[in-house]
Amino acid sequence: MAEIPGYAYGDPALAPSPVGPKELEELKAALMWTEEDNEALREAGEVLKDQVEEILDLWYGFVGSHPHLLRYFADPQGQPIPEYLERVRRRFGQWILDTCLRPKDEAWLAYQHEIGLRHHRSKKGRTDGVETTPHIPLRYLIAFIYPITATLKPFLARKGHPQEKVERMHQAWFKAVVLQAALWSYPYVKEGDF
Amino acid sequence: MAEIPGYAYGDPALAPSPVGPKELEELKAALMWTEEDNEALREAGEVLKDQVEEILDLWYGFVGSHPHLLRYFADPQGQPIPEYLERVRRRFGQWILDTCLRPKDEAWLAYQHEIGLRHHRSKKGRTDGVETTPHIPLRYLIAFIYPITATLKPFLARKGHPQEKVERMHQAWFKAVVLQAALWSYPYVKEGDF
Repeated sequence: MAEIPGYAYGDPALAPSPVGPKELEELKAALMWTEEDNEALREAGEVLKDQVEEILDLWYGFVGSHPHLLRYFADPQGQPIPEYLERVRRRFGQWILDTCLRPKDEAWLAYQHEIGLRHHRSKKGRTDGVETTPHIPLRYLIAFIYPITATLKPFLARKGHPQEKVERMHQAWFKAVVLQAALWSYPYVKEGDF
Repeated sequence: MAEIPGYAYGDPALAPSPVGPKELEELKAALMWTEEDNEALREAGEVLKDQVEEILDLWYGFVGSHPHLLRYFADPQGQPIPEYLERVRRRFGQWILDTCLRPKDEAWLAYQHEIGLRHHRSKKGRTDGVETTPHIPLRYLIAFIYPITATLKPFLARKGHPQEKVERMHQAWFKAVVLQAALWSYPYVKEGDF
């Protein structure tokens, strides 16, 4: 994994998450998260691991077909930056697997915080040394819960699992995506409003 | 509808939404929203309209079973305020129908902004004249996308529609819930970060 550019999961230099284990547990309770979700995510990771590039093709196709989304990968003149798109893509693929396979512990929380910072004006473009849009507005981080959740389901269904199991994996994925969007909002919100 | 306490949909005294029609269209594009979703939401409204109380029983049961969620309906001593719960419940029922049946126009945007303010410290408890928690943290507004979306599906399936139609209504509901969570975040985020 060390070869993924800018991928800093578990890096001790990362700031710890401002969200503690108790807040995480309470958030998971609001998401109806159970032990079964952890297991379903592990299974989803197995199902998805050889489909990552195809999923990314779909997601990048979606973003690329909307200029108002593609601009977040563009330089100040509005030209998409190919190496930026590619570096983010490598991390995005790993993110799919991390969402499924990583324990939701303090290292995971710390990296979620880092991901939030990298979308926010705090660090946008800095990891990849590019001059790009100053940030991705929070409304898009929230909105993307939909496409990231809905478009994944067919990939979960491709390995011949019974419909009920596919549904179970998909619900766990949905919860994990919402949980992360909530965590990523941290740098965007006013003091005390998170 | 005038008899729903604090329900101010369409009230000309409401502040206009800070989100304009162009931003709304761009957000909807990020949610893969199509004309078919408008139609599916209208059908969902028909399916749900005589099930609203049952849906609210389920949601209130969920919140009521988690002290860390019920506290947002409580007084400063931590005691739930029955009349506050009841007034919010009336509006919450209407919200289900509005989500399905109201056109997503400027009046709708203005009321979404008002809903955001009522969760935020700007106006929490003020509509109902109660002394309660200063706000609901944004992370819970985002997290609730999951239970509000997932638990609705069985109600959409109860009127004998084919599975494909139920799925279509549910996807439109999911998009509409995510869209609203994004809009509600406005008062919480730092200047320029929405």
